Amino acid sequence: MSLCPRRLAARQRCPHMKIAQVSPLFESVPPVTYGGTERVVSYLTEELVRQGHEVSLFATADSVTSAHLVPALGTSLRKGTAVPSASSWLSCHVIELGMVADLADTFDVIHFHTDYLHFCMARQLPTPHLTTLHGRLDLPELQPLYRYFNDLPLVSISNSQRAPLSWANWRATVHHGLPIDLYGFEPEADDYFLFVGRISPEKRADRAIEIAIRIGLPLYIAAKVDPADQVYFTSYIEPLLDHPLVHFIGEIREGEKHSLLSRAKALLFPIDWPEPFGLVMIEALACGTPVIAYPHGSVPEVLEHGVTGYIVSNQEDAVAAARQVERLDRRDCRAAFEQRFTAAHMTQAYLKLYERMRDEPRINGHAARHPEARLTAGQPQAPSPR
Amino acid sequence: MSLCPRRLAARQRCPHMKIAQVSPLFESVPPVTYGGTERVVSYLTEELVRQGHEVSLFATADSVTSAHLVPALGTSLRKGTAVPSASSWLSCHVIELGMVADLADTFDVIHFHTDYLHFCMARQLPTPHLTTLHGRLDLPELQPLYRYFNDLPLVSISNSQRAPLSWANWRATVHHGLPIDLYGFEPEADDYFLFVGRISPEKRADRAIEIAIRIGLPLYIAAKVDPADQVYFTSYIEPLLDHPLVHFIGEIREGEKHSLLSRAKALLFPIDWPEPFGLVMIEALACGTPVIAYPHGSVPEVLEHGVTGYIVSNQEDAVAAARQVERLDRRDCRAAFEQRFTAAHMTQAYLKLYERMRDEPRINGHAARHPEARLTAGQPQAPSPR
Repeated sequence: MSLCPRRLAARQRCPHMKIAQVSPLFESVPPVTYGGTERVVSYLTEELVRQGHEVSLFATADSVTSAHLVPALGTSLRKGTAVPSASSWLSCHVIELGMVADLADTFDVIHFHTDYLHFCMARQLPTPHLTTLHGRLDLPELQPLYRYFNDLPLVSISNSQRAPLSWANWRATVHHGLPIDLYGFEPEADDYFLFVGRISPEKRADRAIEIAIRIGLPLYIAAKVDPADQVYFTSYIEPLLDHPLVHFIGEIREGEKHSLLSRAKALLFPIDWPEPFGLVMIEALACGTPVIAYPHGSVPEVLEHGVTGYIVSNQEDAVAAARQVERLDRRDCRAAFEQRFTAAHMTQAYLKLYERMRDEPRINGHAARHPEARLTAGQPQAPSPR
Repeated sequence: MSLCPRRLAARQRCPHMKIAQVSPLFESVPPVTYGGTERVVSYLTEELVRQGHEVSLFATADSVTSAHLVPALGTSLRKGTAVPSASSWLSCHVIELGMVADLADTFDVIHFHTDYLHFCMARQLPTPHLTTLHGRLDLPELQPLYRYFNDLPLVSISNSQRAPLSWANWRATVHHGLPIDLYGFEPEADDYFLFVGRISPEKRADRAIEIAIRIGLPLYIAAKVDPADQVYFTSYIEPLLDHPLVHFIGEIREGEKHSLLSRAKALLFPIDWPEPFGLVMIEALACGTPVIAYPHGSVPEVLEHGVTGYIVSNQEDAVAAARQVERLDRRDCRAAFEQRFTAAHMTQAYLKLYERMRDEPRINGHAARHPEARLTAGQPQAPSPR
């Protein structure tokens, strides 16, 4: 039940840790365009390296990193094809996890960002590990899964994200962070609003359009349309794009996003779903741009109503907020970003967890686990079907 | 590199083995209707138990077995919903594999029938294991997967199935087998042909219809239509069903299949894809019913042209074969089944493999592996994208 001598010695010899970051393979790390998870993995990885840790990044071969890159796939899935098939998606992630398992004993801690695919092998890993869940957790089939693996240590990216699995083995909420100098502060705004994200029913670009038109100011929409959302786009959003105030500019690169974000009067974030984090909100804050958002998911954790933006519950309030958004001090937005949402903050929080994981008592190389999590031979429990 | 004392002692104490059978969760074991893999798992499991082995079957809770059932999911995926979502499909198999990993050290050998999902954890298992691949292997994304995991022991269900991955770590081909008394021999046939299977482009029910109509004898089509094939069915097959000789009877149960198969003049199997095995061919032979088949996939391994059926390359030959199929002696079909395709044959072949796996030298609890299969830290190889 005590720290094994090898680990103890390693720890005394060197305060720096050997850390594996395991990224999804949908996009390169960092992604060229859209791709929240891979971008956060990149920020965390680079900051860990900057602080002197020895980081191995499991990611696509076209990733760019100062860590040691372990290439699990030649080209990112989305680059290879717009819609990766279930089989090609699965097979490359199985390879990646096999690589992680093969190298596991060379790390002090393994940090998975690959959803739950690795759960089947996680208890057998000889190394402390941690999983950050980046997606929504309100799918019914996740209940039996997380109940069965209720000993695996998890990190949420907002407190609200946990709600459907509030009883799971959460070790912390770690909000996303951006490199402090990634987006520069811009004290002056131009007279337009901005919508950034995917075009999908839960992002409600239609609400953003309505708000801008009612105010009478231009709206720029920087958004990608996934093939899955093409019908929604054609049926519901495209007809709204004819208005002279509405400018649809499609998917954009980081640099373009910065210019657009930094000169916007406000970012409109009128979502209609439990957004797990919403990276674009802190990107806006980093520029000094306030955010007008609906109160779903992480929004109340990220924004301070009346300081860094307005949290509104209907279109009337949204229009009123947009009309008076100049009252907010853009310096307060930037300050909130620097105080809470930098990559250094995020990295500090993860490092604290890594150290705690590394130092936890382990049995036979595995973390001490809840007794009920271990299936007793002869008395298995069938999870409910869904 | 030698047999570990615990295993050696276990082996000397008891000639019977502790075997885990890991089934997919799409259907119960055995399935109520269609479901080749789960059916073969059932036959193998029951025969192993009959021979006195201690078998744990990882399968859905609605499975029926004389083995020790480890229920990994309440109800089979296809029973719960016609088209399981990718997420519900994945999550329940991850639970199942987690259960296998948790109990792994209680078995002498683990036999996976779950495609490749478990590969990521397979090298770390403390127990010898074997994977029977039940599906087609000609998808391009499988190449890097099987190259990376080229040390994992595999079993093919026909030699032809191996072709796209001929270089993989094949330990044997084990043809499927049926319980010897499952289907009784029927010396007399009625005047009709039969098509059994799925309605899908590669099964070519249209060819079977053409053959029967040209001969002027009735064709019974006992086939399910997967939702994925509904458009194909409506566009290409349904219009052909109007003919008075064609009788479409949908998906059927085992009992109904037996009556239909045993009285058929011949089973028509005019496939247009690399069929990995084609269970229905040996079901026909068990009844004494010859098979008229196109020469793809396993067909030339299963049938003996001019003895248990005819292997044809075009519709002209197929019609000619169907016209003269009465020349074949139905007793020869049954004899071929009894000599090559019983569950006892299949089980014997697997037991030989289990024993070989159990007795192979192992390093640190893992099977001695090809040195190139192990990723060397710092010199990883990126598999090609696809």
